[in-house]
Amino acid sequence: MKSKTILLALLAVCTFSLKAQQALWGGAPIVSPEVNDDKTVTFRFFAPKADTVLVTGDFLPTEKVKTPFGEADAPINALMKKDEKGVWSYTSDKLASELYSYSFIVDGLKVSDPNNVYMIRDVASITDVFIVGGGKADLYSVNDVPHGTVARRWYNSPGNEMARRLTIYTPPRYEEGKTKYPVLYLLHGMGGDEEAWIALGRTSQILDNLIAQGKAEPMIVVMPNGNVAQQAAPGESPKGLYKPTFQLPHTMDGTYEETFMDVINFVESNYRVKKDKAHRAIAGLSMGGYHSLHISRYYPNTFDYVGLFSAAILPDQKMESKVYNDIDGTLKKQIENGYKLYWIGIGKTDFLYKSSVDFGAKLDSLGMKYTYVESEGGHIWKNWRDYLTEFVPLLFK
Amino acid sequence: MKSKTILLALLAVCTFSLKAQQALWGGAPIVSPEVNDDKTVTFRFFAPKADTVLVTGDFLPTEKVKTPFGEADAPINALMKKDEKGVWSYTSDKLASELYSYSFIVDGLKVSDPNNVYMIRDVASITDVFIVGGGKADLYSVNDVPHGTVARRWYNSPGNEMARRLTIYTPPRYEEGKTKYPVLYLLHGMGGDEEAWIALGRTSQILDNLIAQGKAEPMIVVMPNGNVAQQAAPGESPKGLYKPTFQLPHTMDGTYEETFMDVINFVESNYRVKKDKAHRAIAGLSMGGYHSLHISRYYPNTFDYVGLFSAAILPDQKMESKVYNDIDGTLKKQIENGYKLYWIGIGKTDFLYKSSVDFGAKLDSLGMKYTYVESEGGHIWKNWRDYLTEFVPLLFK
Repeated sequence: MKSKTILLALLAVCTFSLKAQQALWGGAPIVSPEVNDDKTVTFRFFAPKADTVLVTGDFLPTEKVKTPFGEADAPINALMKKDEKGVWSYTSDKLASELYSYSFIVDGLKVSDPNNVYMIRDVASITDVFIVGGGKADLYSVNDVPHGTVARRWYNSPGNEMARRLTIYTPPRYEEGKTKYPVLYLLHGMGGDEEAWIALGRTSQILDNLIAQGKAEPMIVVMPNGNVAQQAAPGESPKGLYKPTFQLPHTMDGTYEETFMDVINFVESNYRVKKDKAHRAIAGLSMGGYHSLHISRYYPNTFDYVGLFSAAILPDQKMESKVYNDIDGTLKKQIENGYKLYWIGIGKTDFLYKSSVDFGAKLDSLGMKYTYVESEGGHIWKNWRDYLTEFVPLLFK
Repeated sequence: MKSKTILLALLAVCTFSLKAQQALWGGAPIVSPEVNDDKTVTFRFFAPKADTVLVTGDFLPTEKVKTPFGEADAPINALMKKDEKGVWSYTSDKLASELYSYSFIVDGLKVSDPNNVYMIRDVASITDVFIVGGGKADLYSVNDVPHGTVARRWYNSPGNEMARRLTIYTPPRYEEGKTKYPVLYLLHGMGGDEEAWIALGRTSQILDNLIAQGKAEPMIVVMPNGNVAQQAAPGESPKGLYKPTFQLPHTMDGTYEETFMDVINFVESNYRVKKDKAHRAIAGLSMGGYHSLHISRYYPNTFDYVGLFSAAILPDQKMESKVYNDIDGTLKKQIENGYKLYWIGIGKTDFLYKSSVDFGAKLDSLGMKYTYVESEGGHIWKNWRDYLTEFVPLLFK
């Protein structure tokens, strides 16, 4: 069989399945989303029989809606317009540079964009994503710069009596030299896992780009799994392909903080790292901010850099764990031991806003220095990517 | 703010977005797919306003359909049944142990299952997947065994004048010891990339499990990108988030074969590997089988183990590349140099069936020994996972 015949036959296999799809989606190849030169974005969706197709997503203007828990911002879904071929389309306003997510709503059903293969999972929801470049989101893109390595690796956690999985970013040229590197431990929020920062947080792209621009020191970034009831992210453990849930047991009861040295010990015995306080940072979002706060206090001479991103702050007063004993005393111990950066970032409309402000007041009363960054917006990944981008250049200088 | 309050508030954020989804999908949490104890599988989909919901997928019985390229097997889509709450459901026949893929078709629109976060991309199509265990697909599951590390890493390819990305599996305890390991180079087909074998092929699960069972030697598996026009998989290169295409230039013109030593050199200078023919294997599916055939001939004293899985076999006679010169002569050179295993696997209904049989006849005429495995089915991932599972235990013994 000649290769042209084979090629035709290979194409036939593919074309057949594409044709099946095209019979569903219409004959013409559809491009969606299309980021236009003027930074508007066009969405297209083939559905000749649908009555209404809306696009929803975080690129849209928002309105206040009432929820049982108070007011919240909800996107004003945009009605798409059908052409004579049955293709619905909508072009957005000019968008700021950002990583956005969206879905279609077809006659009331939320549907992924069949022409976009780029999707990100957040807990049990999957949305399509796109990037508008020409600004800060260029940091979220893969650029023509040296790339670090991203590995998924298992380590033994004696404290949790299980093997556990983590994601680890090693910077460009890590494997080549004999240099020892500093380490940032980067912790996810509730409902997240060791995939959250790398997928939703674009950590490897941000690090590659900041390092290439000379704005960040080359560093290792360790993204462990903060749910001690889990060995690994959904689908990556012997629990199989189950439906992920938001809340898991023992996430905020001191167990993770108390067993965190298992992660540090693993990293420090398996990677070429600088094993001192000056070269260790810990940061996290939401629940991961809570973990970062308490891990850094509980081991008060371990981290010179602490980052609390939209952090949950204080434990339930009824929570009995030695980790949460004597919070003021251990914070004072941190002051005494010294540190270089205690960084707090919070969005003005975050439901945790007040607790961050109150925590700032507590630190003031203790005479504990910190950097406080207030951003627009709420409890969203847009902010956590921003905070990471601001925080990382301050480390290990 | 106390942690219970925070927890409630965190739940509120999540619940709000879940509620929005539930407003779309109905109040009750839906489980789909559900693999039942008797190995039937129940699919559920909330769509109270839909007229017809079908489920399509490779778990269904098939029928012959005519295509412009001849007969092909197509699944007989199953009509789902709506209950009074608007939830459509369908329970399959008892299924053999396998990794299956499926989608819903709602009033003619192909739609992902919103209750299943496990999806795999194949070229530009994304389908939901599930595993029926209790048989061979237990090898495709994450089990309670030691796990290897999976890394995405970039290397320099002087032959292609670019940095390129690959996926690499290192076996459990690779990082701990000083042992040197053998290497399997595992190549994808047309439309694939360095993500294909790890995602669709379940390579890391198969290797972890076969190694734990003592059926395979601990080995490194290198999954490079066989499209020399690409630096990396779609979305992982500076080309951005574009729509993947099936066919790319220069995939079967000798360039990849001629520059393949860049991959080997990288692996052998960056990993603890045994650098001899007895500890190198190369295998690939479809176009990757073509690459394996020609790479092993072109470097005829390099691999003791060659695997051709549903391989595209011979180049276009008009293709001018020194790689494809004197095929019989270079095969004879391989015979002369000696090798341990030349393994050919093909499905009885594969459109490449005849070319594999013809190639077998050619090898017979040259007196070149090979193992020939004929399976049911065609040009599908089910077969390629099977072939990998059969091939790997034969290596490095």
